[in-house]
Amino acid sequence: MPPPNAFLLNFSWLMFPPATYRSRRRTLVEHERPDSGLVLLLGNRRSPRNYVDNPHPFRQDGTFLYYFGLDRPDLYGLINLDAGASTLYGEEATLDDVVWEGEQTALREDAAAVGIDTVDPPSALDARIAQARQQGRPVHVLPPYRDEHRLRLETLLGRPHTQLDDAVSEPLIRAVVRQRSVKSSEEVAEIETALERTAQAHACAQERAIPGASEQEIVGAMTGLLTTEGSTFSFTPTCSVRGEVLHNHSYPNTLEEGDLLLVDAGATSPCHYAGDVTRVTPVGGGFTPQQRAIYDAVLSAQTAAINAVAPDVPFIEIHKHAARTLTEHLIDLGLMQGAADEAVAAGAHALFFPHGLGHMMGLDVHDMESLGETFVGYAEDQTRPDQFGLHTLRLGRPLRPGFVITVEPGCYFIPPLIKQWREERRHERFINYERVEDFLGFGGIRIEDDMLVTEDGARILGPDIPKAPGEVADRAGSSRAA
Amino acid sequence: MPPPNAFLLNFSWLMFPPATYRSRRRTLVEHERPDSGLVLLLGNRRSPRNYVDNPHPFRQDGTFLYYFGLDRPDLYGLINLDAGASTLYGEEATLDDVVWEGEQTALREDAAAVGIDTVDPPSALDARIAQARQQGRPVHVLPPYRDEHRLRLETLLGRPHTQLDDAVSEPLIRAVVRQRSVKSSEEVAEIETALERTAQAHACAQERAIPGASEQEIVGAMTGLLTTEGSTFSFTPTCSVRGEVLHNHSYPNTLEEGDLLLVDAGATSPCHYAGDVTRVTPVGGGFTPQQRAIYDAVLSAQTAAINAVAPDVPFIEIHKHAARTLTEHLIDLGLMQGAADEAVAAGAHALFFPHGLGHMMGLDVHDMESLGETFVGYAEDQTRPDQFGLHTLRLGRPLRPGFVITVEPGCYFIPPLIKQWREERRHERFINYERVEDFLGFGGIRIEDDMLVTEDGARILGPDIPKAPGEVADRAGSSRAA
Repeated sequence: MPPPNAFLLNFSWLMFPPATYRSRRRTLVEHERPDSGLVLLLGNRRSPRNYVDNPHPFRQDGTFLYYFGLDRPDLYGLINLDAGASTLYGEEATLDDVVWEGEQTALREDAAAVGIDTVDPPSALDARIAQARQQGRPVHVLPPYRDEHRLRLETLLGRPHTQLDDAVSEPLIRAVVRQRSVKSSEEVAEIETALERTAQAHACAQERAIPGASEQEIVGAMTGLLTTEGSTFSFTPTCSVRGEVLHNHSYPNTLEEGDLLLVDAGATSPCHYAGDVTRVTPVGGGFTPQQRAIYDAVLSAQTAAINAVAPDVPFIEIHKHAARTLTEHLIDLGLMQGAADEAVAAGAHALFFPHGLGHMMGLDVHDMESLGETFVGYAEDQTRPDQFGLHTLRLGRPLRPGFVITVEPGCYFIPPLIKQWREERRHERFINYERVEDFLGFGGIRIEDDMLVTEDGARILGPDIPKAPGEVADRAGSSRAA
Repeated sequence: MPPPNAFLLNFSWLMFPPATYRSRRRTLVEHERPDSGLVLLLGNRRSPRNYVDNPHPFRQDGTFLYYFGLDRPDLYGLINLDAGASTLYGEEATLDDVVWEGEQTALREDAAAVGIDTVDPPSALDARIAQARQQGRPVHVLPPYRDEHRLRLETLLGRPHTQLDDAVSEPLIRAVVRQRSVKSSEEVAEIETALERTAQAHACAQERAIPGASEQEIVGAMTGLLTTEGSTFSFTPTCSVRGEVLHNHSYPNTLEEGDLLLVDAGATSPCHYAGDVTRVTPVGGGFTPQQRAIYDAVLSAQTAAINAVAPDVPFIEIHKHAARTLTEHLIDLGLMQGAADEAVAAGAHALFFPHGLGHMMGLDVHDMESLGETFVGYAEDQTRPDQFGLHTLRLGRPLRPGFVITVEPGCYFIPPLIKQWREERRHERFINYERVEDFLGFGGIRIEDDMLVTEDGARILGPDIPKAPGEVADRAGSSRAA
């Protein structure tokens, strides 16, 4: 039976009550109102693996989920900005569908579950869009990020798929970003559910961080655990003793005493909200002094950043604050030199910390990234920086209560990057390349938590996932002790 | 270190030796020769989930894997039918790629691993195809089954994506089908590796078939096991106490005493070959007399089919043979009546067995399905039947040594189908609908193995996965006894 505040449908997925979706659409129409006309949201289709009938597990579009909630393929949602009414477009299941895939709830019931009364077949959508175009009414669409969207929009909008850029509605993008950026309490609760599962996955990895274990088997254990709970990873996890590879998606190594295991992984909640946490565990339980020094540097940078998260603070300033904290440690260790603030202003620290401090998180782990990173992460009056390292900072805008963000500084020793910079003598005023050579082969460390910006500050979401050096060392291989 | 007969590259995938791929391409050019001109094979790209940078796990195209072996995205292969030479098209990794995704083997090394000397950037492919088109040389392409293929072919071939049907090369389809249909011994060995993993997954499911276990946790255990081994499912598994739903991909139920758990699952091998096996386990270990009777009927049908598999026998005849065997049992049980051969000729048995007996299996679990089911499954002089049930038989052609096929009869009680047929009084000469009512709620049973057609008969591939009624009953919940 469904829990009282959620609807369990045939696919065993959960949704918020109908009022949530009704209210989200009403807010778009009444408060965020991008313009007059129609808002057309494309639900996703199934993506073929090696042939059409062998698709990847279905993943619904984030914005469609936000306004229309339904996690089934081949749906379209239309919101009439003038009349305020919404229509769901899709095909009813045939007897053949029922024989092969089981009984489906009628589309009308699905629509009712998200507060919609009007259901029509997809052909009616084509006619309705054609009519709107004839009448010169604006049809607002979001950027297509799958080829299926490009082809569908080509037909619906009657313009070549190569010329869709002009058809994308910036007012709609901005309205959706404004609305989805601020998480409601029920969304925060979903994210915390995702983080409970994320914490279990990390515990599962940490207790396996013993010499002789393989990265692959640790990923296998985490995957089994999440699948057992009906969850999935919100993104392909990193699980590697080569932490200097930022998005390492291969798992070929066997753990050895003295390695650092970096796990960057997040689970999804029943309503498809994401978690995203990174922890580093010393394999076998002991940090070397060098590892401990870098670990402390990253943890200090993360703590400084966490303490700085508050409403109205531009996240780009928190990024720089974390970078300065890290740089101060690297100066103490003799890896950098000069004044920390000057080094960070020049971008010298980016040799060690070449990525952004964090990003928005919600229905998408990089929330709303399909709408355009800059729309999501930067205010209209901000210019996105192009300095190496800082250019990959997805989030720079002033924070607002309700934002959910990641805080994830790191420190890496990336041999080809070090080689290139050293050859170019880049930032040699700030970088002690001689000393850096001692750290080649070190790997990398990143520590990441997810935070909610509140009215008067911020809080870390989800259960405590230990990160103090003593705690992570204790956790390494802790299942052996049990 | 790589094993001596395989190449372990940076993504921890394995390949056959270069000579295998060279020989496959040579066979296409010299023996299967579709025509003069160029053969253009599109490797797959990454498929976005909810935004471009959060893709599904990469799955390479089966035909690309067959001739070009490389399991990395954004590659194109060109085979010159006139000169016999092959070229690989792709981009070398940038420093940015290395920072984010780790060191990559150079494309030239990858190409060498599959016996290719010439590597060019994708822009050179565009120029080369344009030149061939100007010269009026045929450019042979396979059917696009992803939208990315449609868009790429539109650009390369200079014709709208809505008009690609005429551009697809039937001679190439037929040549590829002829070649890929006959498995080499190294391919059979890969399939047997896939089946070893498949057997482990089934054992893992069977030992969890106890009252109180959930379908979801059984899928989780199988997923964890396969991921730990670096394998994946070759298709989304069915794991359900509602076996009458043929492709049931949801796992919402808790197992109860008296349920039948149907698991249809297969693993992939390191070179991406598939396994595909179905077993049914009585939850808690005991069949009811009704369950046992239907189980025996399906097992008899499967045994009859297995014994009939041999070179030159049309698989459609084996399908009918299995259907007749099943029907004889159903007549004995009072569910059907009349003469079994007449009932099967009329298609009455399809109420209980509405799908085909099996399909080709290889690099794709429905092998080569993207090339067109009928090209793969039927000889040029065969007409594909349109009778209900038989129309979904993917494979009808005479078998040849080297074919790898599945043999998977089933018997289901599908309430909406029974209701429809009964209302239509369809085949009431052969079906005792009164008696069928006693079986509503029964669910369904399917038993499936994978077979290699040999010179003088056939053999079941892979390790023994128990299916005798006493054995599957013993296996139910066998971990408890350990």
